[in-house]
Amino acid sequence: MAKIAVVGAGMMGSAFCVPLADAGHDVRLVGTHLDDSIIQELQATGLHPKLRYELPRAIRSYQAARLDEAIRAVDVVGLGVSSAGVQWAAEQLRPFVHAEMPIIMITKGLAFDGRELRVLPDVLRDALFGPDHRGIEPTAVAGPCIAGELVRRVETASVLTGRSPAALERLGALVGTDYYHPRLSSDVVGVEVCAALKNAYALGVALAWGLNEKRGGSAGSVAMHNTEAALFAQALLEMRLVVEHCGGDPDSVARLPGAGDLYVTCNAGRTGRFGRLLGLGLGRDEAVARMQGATLESLEILRVMRAAMADAPGRLTPRELPLLAHLAEVALDDMPVRLPFDRFF
Amino acid sequence: MAKIAVVGAGMMGSAFCVPLADAGHDVRLVGTHLDDSIIQELQATGLHPKLRYELPRAIRSYQAARLDEAIRAVDVVGLGVSSAGVQWAAEQLRPFVHAEMPIIMITKGLAFDGRELRVLPDVLRDALFGPDHRGIEPTAVAGPCIAGELVRRVETASVLTGRSPAALERLGALVGTDYYHPRLSSDVVGVEVCAALKNAYALGVALAWGLNEKRGGSAGSVAMHNTEAALFAQALLEMRLVVEHCGGDPDSVARLPGAGDLYVTCNAGRTGRFGRLLGLGLGRDEAVARMQGATLESLEILRVMRAAMADAPGRLTPRELPLLAHLAEVALDDMPVRLPFDRFF
Repeated sequence: MAKIAVVGAGMMGSAFCVPLADAGHDVRLVGTHLDDSIIQELQATGLHPKLRYELPRAIRSYQAARLDEAIRAVDVVGLGVSSAGVQWAAEQLRPFVHAEMPIIMITKGLAFDGRELRVLPDVLRDALFGPDHRGIEPTAVAGPCIAGELVRRVETASVLTGRSPAALERLGALVGTDYYHPRLSSDVVGVEVCAALKNAYALGVALAWGLNEKRGGSAGSVAMHNTEAALFAQALLEMRLVVEHCGGDPDSVARLPGAGDLYVTCNAGRTGRFGRLLGLGLGRDEAVARMQGATLESLEILRVMRAAMADAPGRLTPRELPLLAHLAEVALDDMPVRLPFDRFF
Repeated sequence: MAKIAVVGAGMMGSAFCVPLADAGHDVRLVGTHLDDSIIQELQATGLHPKLRYELPRAIRSYQAARLDEAIRAVDVVGLGVSSAGVQWAAEQLRPFVHAEMPIIMITKGLAFDGRELRVLPDVLRDALFGPDHRGIEPTAVAGPCIAGELVRRVETASVLTGRSPAALERLGALVGTDYYHPRLSSDVVGVEVCAALKNAYALGVALAWGLNEKRGGSAGSVAMHNTEAALFAQALLEMRLVVEHCGGDPDSVARLPGAGDLYVTCNAGRTGRFGRLLGLGLGRDEAVARMQGATLESLEILRVMRAAMADAPGRLTPRELPLLAHLAEVALDDMPVRLPFDRFF
């Protein structure tokens, strides 16, 4: 049994506590300052208001103000804040973490520093330990995993990635249950790039749902699945280019981290619902309003990728990533959907 | 404008005539002896009874008995019979085809001759021209394409594959329309292996739909999508092994022919419905009966792959392909579904 604190009580951070608790660990779920009402309801009723599901009683929940109490002397820290909150989280965690404490990154995203795209475990590492990090490497959990299913113990295979084989083996053994099957990968960059980009590309595939409804179609075996499949394949092609550009292993794209995660994100979750609204022809602001405050990681990753794309040597270009470039136009600039099939493949 | 005859009036052969007709060609759809009632209804009403959709009037339909009249002096022949009918089709076509006539294979499947797995364009070529085929190579159309959507002109990108670049370019120019976007690939083996195997693996992904319903779940954003995604990724992994074994390009797996086609086959069509019934726990015979005579290419490819797998040097083994081996047990031997997660990845 290990003592594990997960910081960030959003959907994925909270859901990740369920297999940890089922595996018999002492699990503490700590809200950020944005999660106060979630923690309040959890403590009052046991129900997670965003997941709309009861969490196991064994998971103890803490308000942000009690972070130090929750996190002192734990064996492992999990980080499940939003991608925008990584720097903040590093400042909160710095007094408590030390070189020997394994950290599991649950947050997904990429950061662009004006020169290069960076995966969040590296951003966190540098924020925690500075340039002199002496090889201390956070691990990260990624790959196909819808939070609402994980809390219901639906059989799930996801990916645990890290550069330290020993830490990876140890954490893999800690987090597995009979329904949650972690697979180990040393390809931190490839896995994390896929995990971040899937939120942009799942929005792209889901555009076809909205386009189908807009022209009077309904869900079913005849819809716009052919179009979705073309978008899905183009998404994998572009993900591969970005993975290669960032120095990751392109083979991760055809496996759980890429195709697997994109599949599940297309078929369930917020990103798909948001893409459908854009496909229906709703303006960007109206679509966002209809999502009623749900965290839209798709917009965040599109902003990052747009900043990273440039017609310049050594940079990813919009020409190489026509689907991504168009998704940014639709979701960020409020432009109408016009799938650029002639620039695909 | 070209004169094009498509032999085989099943769903895909018939649907493929629609972009051909829209592209302005003289299109003849010729039934096999199994398609008499389809052709009869088409001629009487214009409606294709399996597609439940009206075909363009410009497509002329012919009973099998009038094959010679339909096919004489055409420029291109398309072959859309079932995978079991390729030898029969070769005998019918032999008097009419010649070395300069492009042939487009629509039929999907693999053949196992007791030693090796072979793709159908090669089987057809040998059946037509014998070992002395002097490089005459049929092309094949593959990749994501649900027939019911193609006839409704849903935007579709599929793959045209062949070993002759000149024939490929020429046919690509013939078959494209503003909604049907053929992409050219020289990887005949990789593309065709993916196209054949997707019918087996889509059945595997769809098992999770049935499992979900069996335990009281309904379709929606929380179902068993995590399980589906794991099966999807495992499917791509196994497809890659088979493609490599057969000498194809493994990169085809992450693109339109593999991931794209598997995505669309999971989300629509007969294979998915059949897999759902098996996941619900219906016995094999009852599931087949409920499919009401639909052609189940999934059973055919599972039979072929089971014959091809053996614990012997130079052969694919059931141990390498645990999902495929289990699908064969479920769909062919009537064994209960027990997804072998511990043997995945």
